[in-house]
Amino acid sequence: MEGFKFEEQEFFACCGSSKFAKEMSKASPFSSLDEAVTAARDIWFNKVDVTGWLQAFSAHPQIGHNPSPSSHSTSAQWSKGEQSTAFATATSSSLQELSQWNTKYREKFGFVFLICASGKSTDGILAELKRRYPNRPIVEFEIAAEEQMKITELRLGKLFSTKEKVPSTGN
Amino acid sequence: MEGFKFEEQEFFACCGSSKFAKEMSKASPFSSLDEAVTAARDIWFNKVDVTGWLQAFSAHPQIGHNPSPSSHSTSAQWSKGEQSTAFATATSSSLQELSQWNTKYREKFGFVFLICASGKSTDGILAELKRRYPNRPIVEFEIAAEEQMKITELRLGKLFSTKEKVPSTGN
Repeated sequence: MEGFKFEEQEFFACCGSSKFAKEMSKASPFSSLDEAVTAARDIWFNKVDVTGWLQAFSAHPQIGHNPSPSSHSTSAQWSKGEQSTAFATATSSSLQELSQWNTKYREKFGFVFLICASGKSTDGILAELKRRYPNRPIVEFEIAAEEQMKITELRLGKLFSTKEKVPSTGN
Repeated sequence: MEGFKFEEQEFFACCGSSKFAKEMSKASPFSSLDEAVTAARDIWFNKVDVTGWLQAFSAHPQIGHNPSPSSHSTSAQWSKGEQSTAFATATSSSLQELSQWNTKYREKFGFVFLICASGKSTDGILAELKRRYPNRPIVEFEIAAEEQMKITELRLGKLFSTKEKVPSTGN
């Protein structure tokens, strides 16, 4: 087995930028998760343009909302899993406040509030949203891109763990 | 006369972001050009989101190209004036090279190469394009926004100079 080979669509589920998925597919196969993460960071920060960043951001459901189980089902399932702590710690009033702040955030910045939610409570996410809200749009844009990269790394890990469970039958 | 009052459309000719034009209109009248520039900087860097930046960038013709004398005729005429040194110093080979690099730039960054061209030769512009090309997309995005602000300041100056020539007849 020479390395881990994935479909472009699998990379797209990790990060919803077409350019990212295409470049990752070109750069694969990868010999390890570490190699894939290194390539992903290079592609995301150096090759995907700002429109590609916006495209990837728009693939996320609003935080605190269940993604609709539609087209990108892998991404939707992952998103639900990443927010499991948030959902477990949510009260109806905290979810309502989060929803109001999400709207406020989107009006100011033009994209959804992005945070690597894994292990974070609803109150923790809300506090972070309020802390980031006063940022200048360009500053917040870069922070969101860094959060996207954290999410991508987690999802690449999931992708690789799936592949290890199903070894190639080729040799 | 209480101050300089402009139409939203006039601010849009200075900077092609709808949000910028709307906020400038709300902030006016201005008692001086300085006051208008201060407001413009605050609006552009703190209130216009990244999609608004991209909208403003897309209002510019490719550098070295004459803008088509269509809808935004004030902006088109200003753009032509700002590039007068470039046009005067252009040769057919330098224009061809500039055109090729413009294409390369747009493919990498997803928006037109933006530079405050006033007083710059075609060779100077080309050298600057080549120098900026290796930048990361997010870095180049911020540089382009700064160049847009320089252009906006020049254009606000032109707007104010027109108004001074036609004083209010109200009092």
